[in-house]
Amino acid sequence: MSAYHKVTKDIVEELKQIVGDKHVIFDDEEKMEEYSHDEVAEVKFHGMPEVVVKPNRTEEISAIMKLANRENIPVTPQGAKSGLSGGGVAAIGGILLNVERMNRILEIDKANMMAVAEPGIITNDFSAEVQKEGLFFAGYPMSLLTCYLGGNVAENAGGGKAIKYGVTGRYIIGLEVVLPSGEIAFFGGKRVKDVTGYNMVQLMVGSEGTLGIFTKIIVKLIPLPKAKIDMMVLFEDLQTAIDVVPKIMTEVGVIPTGIEFMDQLTLETCCKHLGQNPDQYKNAGAFLIIEVDGNDEEQVLNECLDIGDLCTDNGAIDAFVAQTPADQEKIWALRRNAAEAFKAISPRQSLEDIVVPMSTIPRVLPILRDLSKKHEVFIPCYGHAGDGNLHATVIKNPDHTDEHWQDLLPKVLTDLYSEIYKLGGTISGEHGVGSKLKQYLPLVLGKTEIESMKSIKRALDPNNILNPGKIFDM
Amino acid sequence: MSAYHKVTKDIVEELKQIVGDKHVIFDDEEKMEEYSHDEVAEVKFHGMPEVVVKPNRTEEISAIMKLANRENIPVTPQGAKSGLSGGGVAAIGGILLNVERMNRILEIDKANMMAVAEPGIITNDFSAEVQKEGLFFAGYPMSLLTCYLGGNVAENAGGGKAIKYGVTGRYIIGLEVVLPSGEIAFFGGKRVKDVTGYNMVQLMVGSEGTLGIFTKIIVKLIPLPKAKIDMMVLFEDLQTAIDVVPKIMTEVGVIPTGIEFMDQLTLETCCKHLGQNPDQYKNAGAFLIIEVDGNDEEQVLNECLDIGDLCTDNGAIDAFVAQTPADQEKIWALRRNAAEAFKAISPRQSLEDIVVPMSTIPRVLPILRDLSKKHEVFIPCYGHAGDGNLHATVIKNPDHTDEHWQDLLPKVLTDLYSEIYKLGGTISGEHGVGSKLKQYLPLVLGKTEIESMKSIKRALDPNNILNPGKIFDM
Repeated sequence: MSAYHKVTKDIVEELKQIVGDKHVIFDDEEKMEEYSHDEVAEVKFHGMPEVVVKPNRTEEISAIMKLANRENIPVTPQGAKSGLSGGGVAAIGGILLNVERMNRILEIDKANMMAVAEPGIITNDFSAEVQKEGLFFAGYPMSLLTCYLGGNVAENAGGGKAIKYGVTGRYIIGLEVVLPSGEIAFFGGKRVKDVTGYNMVQLMVGSEGTLGIFTKIIVKLIPLPKAKIDMMVLFEDLQTAIDVVPKIMTEVGVIPTGIEFMDQLTLETCCKHLGQNPDQYKNAGAFLIIEVDGNDEEQVLNECLDIGDLCTDNGAIDAFVAQTPADQEKIWALRRNAAEAFKAISPRQSLEDIVVPMSTIPRVLPILRDLSKKHEVFIPCYGHAGDGNLHATVIKNPDHTDEHWQDLLPKVLTDLYSEIYKLGGTISGEHGVGSKLKQYLPLVLGKTEIESMKSIKRALDPNNILNPGKIFDM
Repeated sequence: MSAYHKVTKDIVEELKQIVGDKHVIFDDEEKMEEYSHDEVAEVKFHGMPEVVVKPNRTEEISAIMKLANRENIPVTPQGAKSGLSGGGVAAIGGILLNVERMNRILEIDKANMMAVAEPGIITNDFSAEVQKEGLFFAGYPMSLLTCYLGGNVAENAGGGKAIKYGVTGRYIIGLEVVLPSGEIAFFGGKRVKDVTGYNMVQLMVGSEGTLGIFTKIIVKLIPLPKAKIDMMVLFEDLQTAIDVVPKIMTEVGVIPTGIEFMDQLTLETCCKHLGQNPDQYKNAGAFLIIEVDGNDEEQVLNECLDIGDLCTDNGAIDAFVAQTPADQEKIWALRRNAAEAFKAISPRQSLEDIVVPMSTIPRVLPILRDLSKKHEVFIPCYGHAGDGNLHATVIKNPDHTDEHWQDLLPKVLTDLYSEIYKLGGTISGEHGVGSKLKQYLPLVLGKTEIESMKSIKRALDPNNILNPGKIFDM
């Protein structure tokens, strides 16, 4: 790292010539502060850039990358700052390249059911525009109101609908990319099949801004589903709840849009947070929210009723079907407020993103219980039951000092990840490794696997200019 | 290429020690002949290996790769020899490594709706086994009765169901891979979300055996659809037929399992080949076969009727719904016999695999017509209308000599690919580049794009040992 050069005033001048005076922030920590962190709470994963640049065109990004290579200065690409792994933070200074100005939808191609957009568009704005054309972007991160499409691609964002619709990458079929060298490449295109050389598109997806900066994104869209129904199903225990999940698919034959679950601690905390009486759920040890969508209201309702029957035949205590938006909101409020509710216990916490084979979810809960006991922390757990992606949240014990918490957290996480690995799981399903998780990567990936990834980084970024220190140190 | 060493008797002995005497073929051209080609007709894409080895375990493949690196001998991995681009052919000799003995299903994990299999299992056998458990492998190459799962992954095989179910890669979530160095890596796992480092799984998928040899494949499965109905719809011309395709999805709201089309020349040739009277279709200039599947027979039928109404409202001449297997077979016989029917005109032909944005399909047909005229060849066209993947087939004019055909074909293809590129298309949707198409790659990919792919090949295979000369020359 020490080999990198500092950003001088001459370089700032050159950057201003590339993007325009107005779009460079230098020597102004107050203005730069908002670009110095994402949604990761821990301050050690924040980082002040030396300069912030906000390009507006592909060629400008290309010029910046060429300059950075020439001057040996690191460049960190950044989107909405809604990340959860520190991936878009200039951890070691250098140039922070924010794409917020590149927020245009370039084309909605209804005949091909595709759209072309820039990386800085807010995911929800993009979704809303394509919906006007009867089309649907099935990528659905929980942060869609604030996050950018470019960040979704960089992190291969998942969310609650992955069980039916897959993650972001499934819908990305073409990318214009500024490579770390500054060269501009176009991979893929408006084609849903393509084996013309390596799948560079999917290599770029989820590469966390380390292999290229996306400047145009071709998104495959699907028809907008016409009907949607949510259900809430209560179970005595988690094992019974999770056992029913594959049966919904194989026996009822329906792939729900989402199957969310919450454990008892989460449920209780959320009820309290929302001023609801947790006693109404006191016999329930686990709680599934099931969403079904489709083309026809009646058909979707029948599918929900079949799912309800299956659940009660398989040990559910109770099942409610919510057809009206008001009832649906009631169900989702609990789930959506989970993260907020936990902050009421303590703002010092680590939102985890572990993912395990779906059938092993019931084995995760005793692990969390044991770790809570051993380390005297709270670890409530909720998440995407349909895809095994669990947002366990390690929360500081209010009785502990901050120093103790700083020492303790890596120990808790090391224990947690080691156990998750034994179940066939890994440390990140949708948030990415970034800087937050990189020290733990060797717990779940072997030397050969990491070395092969590093060899690709080296091949595309020989000077290690683009987003260094993310995923792994070179 | 000249730098590679030859396979000596000592090396053959060492190979025998690795895989067992019985599983090495050396110095026996007759026995090796069957391993010297795939389904590409042109002899120039055949190649006799120096030795054939048939390993049975991952560790054996690892040992072979280490030996090959040490001795600087190229290794070509091979599956069912059903490829259509020469990818699994030992074009420059060396070691031919066939995975036919590694044909086991290692696990069907019903609770996670996944299976783990070896590369040498026949795709149809794999499909049949998982179907017994109510599960469905949605990968569906037309060659599924003979091809191997490993080859499907290596070529990212598509087929007729990609419009609804995507291509093979969508279902591949984990791979045990012997890297070109001989090291064994495991990428991905039984997880449907994973952003723990680069997406090496999808980099491997479609890499045509040049970046690694797959030894275990984790496949995501979906519930077996319970109902399926086929339709045949006749249109006066192709433009009208193709215009209706996105409307089926956006207006009826149904994504069909498949939408196949045939042009008039294909239809006529197939009718003659099957002894049917082509006059019954004489008013039809284009012909769509639409397949719809789902969970409920009645619902699927209703969807088909809605599609039929939409088609007739949008210029279809006639629409038939086939519910019985016999009626379905009648519809599909024409489409399935297309390749065979063309061989009756001339066995000298080149089955193309171009892919274009779906809406531009009508613009391909005049291009084919012009090229046919210019070069005096036949170019009938059929293919997957739903995904823009067209199997135009350039057929030798019986009046031309073989020498003329050899000279002519590259000219026809250069013209064709240049035009396809202008439409936003590319040269291979599902067959791969292999050795057959590599000379044309620069027509559709720029220098930057090819160079970035080559840098990855170099990173993972510095000695260029694994399947050299495929996709591009290093």
